[in-house]
Order: sequence, then structure tokens, then C-alpha cells
Amino acid sequence: MLGAWVDGSVAATIGIDDRGLHYGDGLFETIAASAGRPRFLAGHLARLARGCAALSIPMPDEARLRAEVAQAAALAPHVIVKLIVTRGAARARGFAIEGGEAPRRIVIAYAWLEGPDHAAAPARVARAERPVARPPAALAGVKHLNRLEQVLALTEARRRALDEVLLCTDDDRIVGGSMTNLFLVTGGELVTPPAASCLVAGVMRGEVLRAAARLGLAVAERAISVADLSRVEGAWLTNARVGLWPIGAIADRSLAVHAWHSPLQRQVRQAALGVQDA
Amino acid sequence: MLGAWVDGSVAATIGIDDRGLHYGDGLFETIAASAGRPRFLAGHLARLARGCAALSIPMPDEARLRAEVAQAAALAPHVIVKLIVTRGAARARGFAIEGGEAPRRIVIAYAWLEGPDHAAAPARVARAERPVARPPAALAGVKHLNRLEQVLALTEARRRALDEVLLCTDDDRIVGGSMTNLFLVTGGELVTPPAASCLVAGVMRGEVLRAAARLGLAVAERAISVADLSRVEGAWLTNARVGLWPIGAIADRSLAVHAWHSPLQRQVRQAALGVQDA
Repeated sequence: MLGAWVDGSVAATIGIDDRGLHYGDGLFETIAASAGRPRFLAGHLARLARGCAALSIPMPDEARLRAEVAQAAALAPHVIVKLIVTRGAARARGFAIEGGEAPRRIVIAYAWLEGPDHAAAPARVARAERPVARPPAALAGVKHLNRLEQVLALTEARRRALDEVLLCTDDDRIVGGSMTNLFLVTGGELVTPPAASCLVAGVMRGEVLRAAARLGLAVAERAISVADLSRVEGAWLTNARVGLWPIGAIADRSLAVHAWHSPLQRQVRQAALGVQDA
Repeated sequence: MLGAWVDGSVAATIGIDDRGLHYGDGLFETIAASAGRPRFLAGHLARLARGCAALSIPMPDEARLRAEVAQAAALAPHVIVKLIVTRGAARARGFAIEGGEAPRRIVIAYAWLEGPDHAAAPARVARAERPVARPPAALAGVKHLNRLEQVLALTEARRRALDEVLLCTDDDRIVGGSMTNLFLVTGGELVTPPAASCLVAGVMRGEVLRAAARLGLAVAERAISVADLSRVEGAWLTNARVGLWPIGAIADRSLAVHAWHSPLQRQVRQAALGVQDA
């Protein structure tokens, strides 16, 4: 950690009665920043606002959030800023929202060692050993703090010496990776699961969809089945930190980096520079 | 709060880097205590141990946990002791378990206002408006800290002026209440959903099953469908705090307190007094 703040003040702790701890009752954003500038901040704050609405947590003042994220982003050349918003301290024992809770803002700055221009070796992935729960409609795509399934999944990936595992629900639909969204090219079309079936509706996912549209590529947001994996012509993992990460192997099957990689990545990089978030 | 301890020391805060906050990466127990004596403590600690095994969190020393719970239980005539065990401080950014994390024990004492002998009016319940996710096998029954669905469900119950909502998965199976397990009598048989489909495998659920066995009642752990509700002859909600709470109304349908209520309750109360946990 390079630094941490709670409700705008430097802090290393939070109250033991925070509903974020007790129930995972809150949201988070993982924001990549370079040269003091948070990337895609408008997208992160828009998703946070959608999540706050889904959980009936009052959205914190956006100008204040921007200032706090900027403060964290300034601590090193490349920073990952984790922004957590919890419902705040519990007003009574038990699950129920009492109303009148004061949301808590937690901002933590971590060193972003690899930075935005790092080209990782293509990712090695495989299907996760265990199905994940289908997210209920009220929480689908929301970046909330209930992340145990992803903790177990990414730990499985590490154990199997994979970069990521592909998570399937019990109807054999692939919803994405443990920490990433998934894009495939199949039949000449760029496909990604619909936001409503994603564990997290990624900000980078949205940027890739926009980049593909600008390039005039055929794009579809639709369910990806396990069978689709055998017909893949190219594939990527995406998130705010890794950007657009080509998949080089799905289980035993190697996959070449697709011809669309460079133009898509160029578009995303231009968007990261061009979007006016300040 | 009557008092709170972290790792055995009086404390009001935890570190901002705790994985319990970031991912809900931990477990909890809600233990009712009377006259300084935690009820069914062996059952709570056994479930905690199962949960630790499921999440690969080292189970804290049991003698130490017993001493810390006892300290909390002594603060008032009737106390709800919340025991949280998280994986502890993160050793790196990101979901993956790095290994070597030091689990954190959090003990909070709350006043148990109604105490164990309070007879609440029969509960008014109805089916929840939204389906809940089917718990994945690895987490079914585990009392972990990912509780957002139950937060939303119990808040719905409050809004609808119900005591509880019955949660169904998308295949119309009832898995229990938001904060309770469910027992029904139908066809002369006491039925409760299997532990493997429960959001939490309740300690009181286990006590009721044992009480029913001692009484020689016909008992089945099997799926309860929404259709089963129309054939109910009696029903209860259970948890460590409310004990065995008769259901008096399911939506518009009134339900009399079943003849098995008094003998079951007597058995559970005797078990609470008789079990040697000290």
C-alpha cells in the first residue's frame, strides 16, 4: 500500500461495525492510473453509481470521489487505486438495512508495477473446476464486495499455474474469468457475455465494445457456451489493470493472437489518453 | 454493542486491508448466551471449523475462541455474541489467497433484549419477490461473510411488514428465510431443505432435527417446492436467536401453531441447558 484514506482522512483502520465487513455490503472500483491520471474514471464512477442504486446506498459526492482518487493516483508514476464504498457503520445488529446509514469511502493506493504499456505473455486459461452461482438479477454486473467465489476461483488458477480460469454456471454458460471479462472471436464475430450475466460489468469490457464499434467489427453480446470454446479464432481477457490481454491457450489448445488485437488495443489506448476525466 | 475484541484485545477497529472487508473472505457465528453461558457453543464451533475447511482458513485455537466468547457472554444477562473469523490482512493486492495469511478473530457482544424465553407472536412470512442464487457446492451451508442477497431480502421483509421472507432459487425450491432455516409439517412429516441447499446450515436447525429424532417424529431433509406451501400443516423458522419460531401466516394464509411445537421447543430448551459446553 502506498497510502490509504477513509472518508478523506489518512487512515489505516475502519470501524469494527462496518457493514462492508459484516455482510460485504458495499461496492468497489479498481482504477488504474498513470502519470497521476486515473484512466476511464468516468466509467468507473458511472458503474459505482449504478451499484449504489442497486444496493440503495446513497452515491457519495462525485467531485469528492474524484479528488480522493486523484490524491491516491499522485503517489507514484503508475498506481492502482482501489475505491471501496460501504453502507457504513451498522445502525443495529442484523442483516436489515435500517435506513440512515452513512456510506463510508475507503481509498487505497497500490503500486501498479507493470504499468499500462506492459505486454504480458498471452494468458493461459482453462475452465474452472467448479461451477459458480448464476448472479441474481438484482446483483448481476454489480461490483459489490461479495467475492468469495472469485477468491476461490483465482486461487484455483494459481494452484494450476494458470493466469485465469473461465467460470461457468451450472447450465454450462461461461460468464467470464475470476477477475476479468471474456471476449472471443468465433465465426468472424467478436462475442462477450451480456452484462446481465457477468459477475462484474467491466469498465474495460465497455471500452473494448466501444473500440470494436469504432473499428466497424461485428460484435455480439450473447451467452458463450463451453462448446463455443472449440470454435474460437481468438480470445482476450479484459480488466482495468491488464487492459486487453490475449489468451494464448485454453486448456491444451493453443491460440494465436488474433489480427484484431493490435487495432483494438490501439483504440483502447487512445481512449485512455483522450477521455477527459479531470 | 456491549463490547468488542480483535484477536483477544479490546478494539473498535480493524485494518483497512482485511480480506473480510475486501471480499467477504471469512466466516461468522451468531451465538446466543444467557447467564454468561453461550448456548450450543460446540455446534457453533463445529460449523465454524467446517467453514474454515471450506475456505482453507486455518481454524483458530478452539480454547482461545471459547474464552473470548465467554468473556463477551459475561457482559449482560442475555447476550448475542457475534464471532467473525476473517482470512486476515491481505498479503498482496487481488483476489488470490497468497498463503500465510494470519486469520483474525473479531468478537462483538450485543444485548439480547428478548432473551431465550421470549415467545414472539407467530411469524408472518411470504415468498421473496426475487429469486436467490443457488449456492455453489463449495459454499452451500457455509456461514461466510458474503451476505448481500440476505441483506436485500430481509430489507424487503421489513418493507412489506413481514417478519421474514422465504427465499426461492430459480427452480422454485425454497431454501429457507433470509436469516432463518425453515421447517414444515406436510403429510405428517417434518421437512426441512437439505443442508447442501441451505444458505446457512443452521446450528438451531441441527438441534431441531435432533429434538425431532428424540421425539420419534417422522423427519425428512428434502427439497421444499413452492407448491408444498399449500399443503403445510405447520411451519417454523429457526435460528440461534429466535429458537423455534412458529409461522402464523404464509402470505394470506393463516397457519395454526402445530401440536409438535411444544414438545419440540421443550426438547430444544433442555438441550440448551443440558449440553456441556464449558
